[in-house]
Amino acid sequence: MTRTRTSTEIEPLPAGLTTAVSTTLDTFIDDKQRQLAPIGHELEQLITAARRAVHGGKRLRPAFAYWGWRAAGGSADKTDAILTAAAAIELVHASALAHDDVMDDSETRRGQPAAHRAFSRRFREAETARVDAERFGRSAAILLGDLLLSWSDELLGRSEFKPESMARGRVYFDRLRTEVVAGQYLDLLAQAGGTSSASDALRVVRYKSAKYTVERPLQFGAALAKAGKPLLSALSSYGVPLGEAFQLRDDVLGVFGEASITGKPSGDDLREGKRTLLLARASDKADQSQRALLDRHVGNPRVDAAGIAAVQDVIRETGALSAVETVITELTAAALSALEHAPVADEDSRAALRVLSDRATKRTV
Amino acid sequence: MTRTRTSTEIEPLPAGLTTAVSTTLDTFIDDKQRQLAPIGHELEQLITAARRAVHGGKRLRPAFAYWGWRAAGGSADKTDAILTAAAAIELVHASALAHDDVMDDSETRRGQPAAHRAFSRRFREAETARVDAERFGRSAAILLGDLLLSWSDELLGRSEFKPESMARGRVYFDRLRTEVVAGQYLDLLAQAGGTSSASDALRVVRYKSAKYTVERPLQFGAALAKAGKPLLSALSSYGVPLGEAFQLRDDVLGVFGEASITGKPSGDDLREGKRTLLLARASDKADQSQRALLDRHVGNPRVDAAGIAAVQDVIRETGALSAVETVITELTAAALSALEHAPVADEDSRAALRVLSDRATKRTV
Repeated sequence: MTRTRTSTEIEPLPAGLTTAVSTTLDTFIDDKQRQLAPIGHELEQLITAARRAVHGGKRLRPAFAYWGWRAAGGSADKTDAILTAAAAIELVHASALAHDDVMDDSETRRGQPAAHRAFSRRFREAETARVDAERFGRSAAILLGDLLLSWSDELLGRSEFKPESMARGRVYFDRLRTEVVAGQYLDLLAQAGGTSSASDALRVVRYKSAKYTVERPLQFGAALAKAGKPLLSALSSYGVPLGEAFQLRDDVLGVFGEASITGKPSGDDLREGKRTLLLARASDKADQSQRALLDRHVGNPRVDAAGIAAVQDVIRETGALSAVETVITELTAAALSALEHAPVADEDSRAALRVLSDRATKRTV
Repeated sequence: MTRTRTSTEIEPLPAGLTTAVSTTLDTFIDDKQRQLAPIGHELEQLITAARRAVHGGKRLRPAFAYWGWRAAGGSADKTDAILTAAAAIELVHASALAHDDVMDDSETRRGQPAAHRAFSRRFREAETARVDAERFGRSAAILLGDLLLSWSDELLGRSEFKPESMARGRVYFDRLRTEVVAGQYLDLLAQAGGTSSASDALRVVRYKSAKYTVERPLQFGAALAKAGKPLLSALSSYGVPLGEAFQLRDDVLGVFGEASITGKPSGDDLREGKRTLLLARASDKADQSQRALLDRHVGNPRVDAAGIAAVQDVIRETGALSAVETVITELTAAALSALEHAPVADEDSRAALRVLSDRATKRTV
């Protein structure tokens, strides 16, 4: 969930539509601001945090929802409806990020202080503290995430699809929300346990990233346009491997990426101790001294540049890096092959999804 | 949110319907268990936690939803639908409690370990810990709450109301979920700031308890039966003061209640430092030495029985207790008066709501 980088921008929506998603979110939050204002002026703080939480994402999930809808032949007069529904997924995502940052105790998000940090800071400046500011910040960010999650349904409910279409779409919206939590829980266990096998790591990638970021948004959009089983199935055959490849590319960037490209300090995932496929492979193939080196440095927040470089060497020398690159190539090929055979109603969608695959998996280190 | 006591049982649903709500929740979680099983056997832990989270409540909000629906003339052939919708509110509530317990770092809930404690304990027993068990427990409970909140919509979507009825009901379901977070945030600020005026305290009571527990569930049920404005407005005139009286009764029990009746140690709210109207009034009227005593003992988790007794004396001597009792009496009278004039479609609902008012506000200390 924390993996998608900020600076390797993808422009997956047709011109104007990324802006339209942002406008939809802004308009919705304006409405919520009017609803909350009479309750108390202090709630401005929550509104401000909500605006920041939905700001600046790549809108990747809305893009897949939009193109899924187009792939199923969604009609142009429903464009506003699909943009509203697609924006609802961004609220789910903003909620997940706010909670994720509390769980990981992250400092930053999209180059800004994480929500719980911003709440702590504001509280420290403004109040005669009786409890500690960190605790206040965490609690406020939990509430913020709850609000955004509740709002995701409310916004979805405002998209003007007919009840039958909406019911079909909700099936995938619901799956997305359940599966991402399942993936996060498995990730939590893997991180907490300190080890994870390659198959454990891939399972986390599948549920926390691939299905959540690509497959389910595509199917959600397609179902809103009443896609039949063959298309829904083809979108899965395209979406799951592409989403996995995307996450694995992100994992490689998390270890080898330059700060100037990823927007995060180089080697940041190693400091955090993220249990990725890359690390699982390296650990599997490591000899005794290499494994000792991994144990010493991975997950150590104070590891220095020499330590990072040593771990990078182990990941290269064990063949883990080239193995993961091979997996990325194979997964991408599988996704593209499924895309070529997908029974899409609109060739523009096939072309757009081809471009998206390319940008998602070939970002340079 | 934490205030409703466990042992002063209310039986607000007609015989069999409390059970029906529990059965609906069990059946829904069975279904989710089947959905999650293929992802990973570890997810049994989340399912177990979800079952515990929805177990043992008084089903107060479903009761109000049910009677709101009956008040609006809901037809008997939709009984299954209203029970499903009412059960959805219990999922919202279970989510809020799981997150509330993380925010307050509570030990117990309904006489059992709070969700985050249960996760921590299980983790401590089962895993080779790399992170601390407390942190794991908190993170898992955040995820549990997210899951339950997402599921609340999903369950609501399964209630077989016609789209038009559902759209009307969702208005109040959405308000309930936004307002409870707003109330919790105001409460968080009050607790964190260490002081709150009587009007601040009442505002928290209104949004976090009265609207959330009584008014919005009533209106939600009524709207699902297509209630008109006069009834929706009357249910508000009944529900808000009743909900406030209910919470104030709970606040009194939180300070003066016997453990055998409240299910919590006597004086527990004082140890926690809950900023209630009772305390705000006492603080307003206290002289210098009384205020010093309040400052010393309230919010001190290690305060002894003598300290609790001294605070109780201050609350009595300042007239705060009798003032709050007067407010409870007046609010209850206002609620009952509104109820007598409410344009209900079914006299059974008026009688049931009368009984509910009585039980909610006259629980003995």
